[in-house]
Amino acid sequence: MADPLFRRVAIIGIGLIGSSIARKVMKEGLAEEIAICDRGAAALAEARELGLGHVYEENPGDAVKGAGLVVSCVPVGAAGDVAVSIAPWLEPDALVTDTGSVKASVVRQMLPHLPDASRFVPAHPVAGTENSGPSAGFADLFENRWCILTPTRETDLRALDRVSEFWRRLGADVETMTPEHHDLVLAITSHLPHLIAYNIVGTADDLEEVTQSEVIKFSAGGFRDFTRLAASDPTMWRDVFLHNREAVLEALGRFSEDLAALQRAIRWSDGTTLFDTFTRTRAIRRGIIDAGQEIAEPDFGRRAATSKSADADGVDGDRGDAPERKQAGAHPSR
Amino acid sequence: MADPLFRRVAIIGIGLIGSSIARKVMKEGLAEEIAICDRGAAALAEARELGLGHVYEENPGDAVKGAGLVVSCVPVGAAGDVAVSIAPWLEPDALVTDTGSVKASVVRQMLPHLPDASRFVPAHPVAGTENSGPSAGFADLFENRWCILTPTRETDLRALDRVSEFWRRLGADVETMTPEHHDLVLAITSHLPHLIAYNIVGTADDLEEVTQSEVIKFSAGGFRDFTRLAASDPTMWRDVFLHNREAVLEALGRFSEDLAALQRAIRWSDGTTLFDTFTRTRAIRRGIIDAGQEIAEPDFGRRAATSKSADADGVDGDRGDAPERKQAGAHPSR
Repeated sequence: MADPLFRRVAIIGIGLIGSSIARKVMKEGLAEEIAICDRGAAALAEARELGLGHVYEENPGDAVKGAGLVVSCVPVGAAGDVAVSIAPWLEPDALVTDTGSVKASVVRQMLPHLPDASRFVPAHPVAGTENSGPSAGFADLFENRWCILTPTRETDLRALDRVSEFWRRLGADVETMTPEHHDLVLAITSHLPHLIAYNIVGTADDLEEVTQSEVIKFSAGGFRDFTRLAASDPTMWRDVFLHNREAVLEALGRFSEDLAALQRAIRWSDGTTLFDTFTRTRAIRRGIIDAGQEIAEPDFGRRAATSKSADADGVDGDRGDAPERKQAGAHPSR
Repeated sequence: MADPLFRRVAIIGIGLIGSSIARKVMKEGLAEEIAICDRGAAALAEARELGLGHVYEENPGDAVKGAGLVVSCVPVGAAGDVAVSIAPWLEPDALVTDTGSVKASVVRQMLPHLPDASRFVPAHPVAGTENSGPSAGFADLFENRWCILTPTRETDLRALDRVSEFWRRLGADVETMTPEHHDLVLAITSHLPHLIAYNIVGTADDLEEVTQSEVIKFSAGGFRDFTRLAASDPTMWRDVFLHNREAVLEALGRFSEDLAALQRAIRWSDGTTLFDTFTRTRAIRRGIIDAGQEIAEPDFGRRAATSKSADADGVDGDRGDAPERKQAGAHPSR
């Protein structure tokens, strides 16, 4: 157990991200007390059953009393409400941070209501899963993931340092940039990919010639990989698109332009354009693996379809093994 | 070791699919002899080093002599050449099948050249990884994956049965449909997803405001999942789009239509449309998991970034464990 960084940490919103923070703070002893707040009675009750914190409050004002750090983990559309509801009850020295996937809008929503702008440090941990709710969280979610801090002009440097330290202790690598630049970067690395994934899954659902059972049955051909993103939390993602509109529309415009060019290449049997495009995209994949943000193991070959698919260890043991070892594992007699 | 189904099986084209078939035929003893043929001297030499077969031929005609089954595993654009080059040397009773991702075009390319149309059974194993070449294959690639057989009007039923048996022995579940319907189904479950993935990775590569290193660094937000598909073999995919043009353009047209609707919803802050779309796509994901074509383990949380990422077992052991077990595993003292 390390020294606690704060006496009380208040977590507002106990979904995937909030509950993952709570679990890690508890495990690493980063706070003497964890106050958990959620407007949803069901989520709050679930958090209590899971023992994610020490006190459970429906009212944000009660949760932030005595808190040295307040972490808002609500959908970005609710950031303003959180600021309004906690402002009167914040301790003078309280640091306020958040985990929203959009930053400029969160700053616009929260900053005007906070008593001390210098102690507000907007943040976005680039981590998550396609699951939602208090039970979906796990303490190692942020391990070796990036957390982007987007200080405002008013943010105090010591406040920035303490929130950086908090995220490093949660396991994350910390990067700093402006809220505006963050929104441009995430529009392409996260927001557009999710929009595209939601869209293609919807398109497949609407076809007449192809049945949904066929789409599901033969999804291993590539479609499967999109459904994972398209299973993400609808409320969170609705808010992301409503609050990062300009950057997403800009990225989407470029995407559609490029797609039109590929469409034209297909229509006119321009194999060279197709081949060149498909070749250059391989370099980025290699870069992501080299950067440690992905593993080289071929994943299309994942053993999702085995009869053991209910047994995570079995399946993932298979998935995990390199091809040669996979064979040996499957046939010990070999 | 089961009884061999054929004395000699000839595999034309020894990439990911061909080498995976060779490994499984060898391991299960499905043939007394495996003849491997590839026009590429390097691939053929690699196959020889890997010991994937018994005889290695640069000339398809030599490979098919004495073969009871000929499996063409070349990019769909080369199917016609294979048919022409093997036709004069086929045994009277030889069965001919292929593994192309497009079927109507392969039938058009091969059928006219084959001496006995009744013994031609087009096939497509819906399996693969983002890697290519003889070394990328593994014997269990087809395990619990679907293999779609698309018999022509001329295909003999006993020939169909024997090729079905061959694919079942390779570990696949066998489905049968017309070449034309196959091309419609795969256009949406495989071809369009790959085109979209290649396109978004290309778009990200072209941005001015966002550097490529930023795209790579923060790819865990969702972009990462697209780069996997976008790392697939460029030649294979160029041919897929050139040879399934109509079905792909049709699917692409619907995709773009739907995307325009989402774009409009974002521009006009129509949260309801976004929320409803993002909600209904969740059902398909559940269907794919229930159908055993995917596992429920949250994969966004994959431990790709851990320092152990060079160690497949370590990483995938972590990836494989359920969140709770992952914590326990990471902290045995807990």
